[in-house]
Amino acid sequence: MTQAITTQNQEKITAVKGLKCKECGAEYEAKAIHVCEFCFGPLEVAYDYDALRRSVTRESIQAGPNSIWRYRALLPVETDNPIDVGTGMTPLVRANRLARRLGLKKLYIKNDAVNMPTLSFKDRVVSVALTRARELGFTTVSCASTGNLANSTAAIAAHAGLDCCVFIPADLEAGKVLGTLIYGPTVMAVQGNYDQVNRLCCEVANTQGWGFVNINLRPYYSEGSKTLGYEVAEQLGWELPDHIVAPLASGSLFTKIYKGFQEFINLGLVADKSVRFSGAQADGCSPIAQAFREERDFVQPVKPSTIAKSIAIGNPADGIYALEVARKTNGNIESVNDAEIVEGMKLLAETEGIFTETAGGTTIAVLKKLVEAGKIDPEETTVVYITGNGLKTQEAVQGYIGEPLTIEPKLDSFERALERSRTLERLDWQQVLV
Amino acid sequence: MTQAITTQNQEKITAVKGLKCKECGAEYEAKAIHVCEFCFGPLEVAYDYDALRRSVTRESIQAGPNSIWRYRALLPVETDNPIDVGTGMTPLVRANRLARRLGLKKLYIKNDAVNMPTLSFKDRVVSVALTRARELGFTTVSCASTGNLANSTAAIAAHAGLDCCVFIPADLEAGKVLGTLIYGPTVMAVQGNYDQVNRLCCEVANTQGWGFVNINLRPYYSEGSKTLGYEVAEQLGWELPDHIVAPLASGSLFTKIYKGFQEFINLGLVADKSVRFSGAQADGCSPIAQAFREERDFVQPVKPSTIAKSIAIGNPADGIYALEVARKTNGNIESVNDAEIVEGMKLLAETEGIFTETAGGTTIAVLKKLVEAGKIDPEETTVVYITGNGLKTQEAVQGYIGEPLTIEPKLDSFERALERSRTLERLDWQQVLV
Repeated sequence: MTQAITTQNQEKITAVKGLKCKECGAEYEAKAIHVCEFCFGPLEVAYDYDALRRSVTRESIQAGPNSIWRYRALLPVETDNPIDVGTGMTPLVRANRLARRLGLKKLYIKNDAVNMPTLSFKDRVVSVALTRARELGFTTVSCASTGNLANSTAAIAAHAGLDCCVFIPADLEAGKVLGTLIYGPTVMAVQGNYDQVNRLCCEVANTQGWGFVNINLRPYYSEGSKTLGYEVAEQLGWELPDHIVAPLASGSLFTKIYKGFQEFINLGLVADKSVRFSGAQADGCSPIAQAFREERDFVQPVKPSTIAKSIAIGNPADGIYALEVARKTNGNIESVNDAEIVEGMKLLAETEGIFTETAGGTTIAVLKKLVEAGKIDPEETTVVYITGNGLKTQEAVQGYIGEPLTIEPKLDSFERALERSRTLERLDWQQVLV
Repeated sequence: MTQAITTQNQEKITAVKGLKCKECGAEYEAKAIHVCEFCFGPLEVAYDYDALRRSVTRESIQAGPNSIWRYRALLPVETDNPIDVGTGMTPLVRANRLARRLGLKKLYIKNDAVNMPTLSFKDRVVSVALTRARELGFTTVSCASTGNLANSTAAIAAHAGLDCCVFIPADLEAGKVLGTLIYGPTVMAVQGNYDQVNRLCCEVANTQGWGFVNINLRPYYSEGSKTLGYEVAEQLGWELPDHIVAPLASGSLFTKIYKGFQEFINLGLVADKSVRFSGAQADGCSPIAQAFREERDFVQPVKPSTIAKSIAIGNPADGIYALEVARKTNGNIESVNDAEIVEGMKLLAETEGIFTETAGGTTIAVLKKLVEAGKIDPEETTVVYITGNGLKTQEAVQGYIGEPLTIEPKLDSFERALERSRTLERLDWQQVLV
């Protein structure tokens, strides 16, 4: 089922050349490091694209498993037996009803709210990071998380039999805490915001010898997000869209979707095309949107305060790279307030039957805002990335979506309730008409 | 992407011959009816298997979409443009760590906890029922539900632009209520148990002219569960397993997995083979398990009282057919108590990273019980069906899975907490050893 780029005697073969500093270009071996010794720039995985061009074809990809591992040759691991729990290949849904509501013609939802196993795009990056962690000899894995990453690290570590300790802000949504504890890891609830959690984890990474998926394993981890680019291209019939809209937290997801598209062009898997990249943030934590608006080329850290906790990163590691992508592709970065986020969640659920978390509500609300501002052309093939599931942030919509009508198990009780609800609906409509 | 059994001029072609009474064999047109006029037996869809044998091959299936609609020819709809939101083709996970824990050799989890769009197997039956409802001209769809079905009906109706009114028992889990309301349907919370809800809905179905997916559309609806049989056979490389374990609520799922396997044999898609069928119920609602234990050929209705609310059907419509399948395949039907259900949920999460709801906990606990009783051979290729997601029944595990360790964002606070947790673990182990 995995791709056939290994030799018959199962020798490890990989196109990974090593790590390379994104800023100064210094090269390193593919170990558990993430910061350049010389300039403190972030390290990124470097590949031998000439070798990949010879071995990777549409057919070789399609012959692979129905998961992110169909793109194994383009991911930074050596094994041909990666941790595969069915992650990825989530549906690309043609969203006609939402499109009509917004006045667009060709809108798609890339739905990672049903990603496997823990219902967020984080399962992609964690599958890659833990596969690499195992190769590098780690027996304990860890992360600094706003919730989804903790769910994913704990779940996939459990499946793989790795010890796990995760760090979260103490004020997370109940569903995200319980959705981590269930897998039996050690959970550290830090009294502080995500940026404080992250700083603490950087210290712990230096002392404990653990594999932190988004710290010392970050170069491998972040590559997993490229699959969100690959899959959309493949699912559109080996074509790139015209415009994508994605949420911005650290900014990594955004830049890696871009990298995924560029690699597919580079390998001749899709025709060359410029794709516009637009990013979504919550007003309560919008350092990248602010920099975009003010035409700055640096990101000023902020203190987060928003219901969109999963994207509430006040000091985004890849913020400047996300800015760069939005600018050079003629995209935009916008932010919306908490009320708009809730409306975004409801809009997506009522038109498309997709229940997303606050981050997805943010993305839909920004999509709406961009359309209304004329910043998305109705003719553009637009793909919106939905990255997490609404069952994890139930608090956000409680009180904003009505209540059931309580009835007795009798026909007349039902009929009275139905009549009442229809009357209320008519009154609602009359108010709309007035 | 859909299967090519339509003619070039898009004339509707289907292998459906009509409906047929399961008891007396009386035949009916394929309309919105579910009970035989003559003997009150349940109606089932009848197909022209000779025609199907000529047109359906492994290749024609594999050329279809990556959803239940790759099996469109075997489903009771006419359109070649069904409601497809990516439902089905959920992962079949090789569960090595759970297998080792239980002493089995070849165990798989069919994971519908990540089914699309609403994280339960109900998305399969609802996709089929609403596609058929649209064909039959219904504009409002409805259901009697223990929660998952309401989630699914509301979501897929939203996507398809159908009006929706669902009926649930008033005491359902918060996640299931909210996970319905978000899509904007009318929700009737009935003060009674599921069997009372169901009786009320039978009356409403006669008066409102609505399409009730599990009442007047039940013959079509229930066929959707066959895909859980088809997919497992295809995912095992066009082979049947030796033994399956699935939860029993109405009993329909169980009998339709059986029907799916039989059809694949009949069509020559897999080799003939006998598969053992074992069923799981909760002690607090185990009418089918009781009948099995007491070797009765009738099911005595019970009043449900269990945390496994999604399978708490006291008067199961297909109970006797489920009994029949278990008996003729040399399977078993077992039940477990609420504490065992919670342990089952934890066991699956800790070994495989899959967070299932109470129904899945029931199935895992029954699996364990059957293995311990020597009723599953360690050599058997065993497939366990996990039908729903744990994020919807968070109440069930709250208080049984520990708490996070709260720390300050400082290295020494973390180190003290880690030391404490390791000491507690050692004490735990010492208690185990004493």
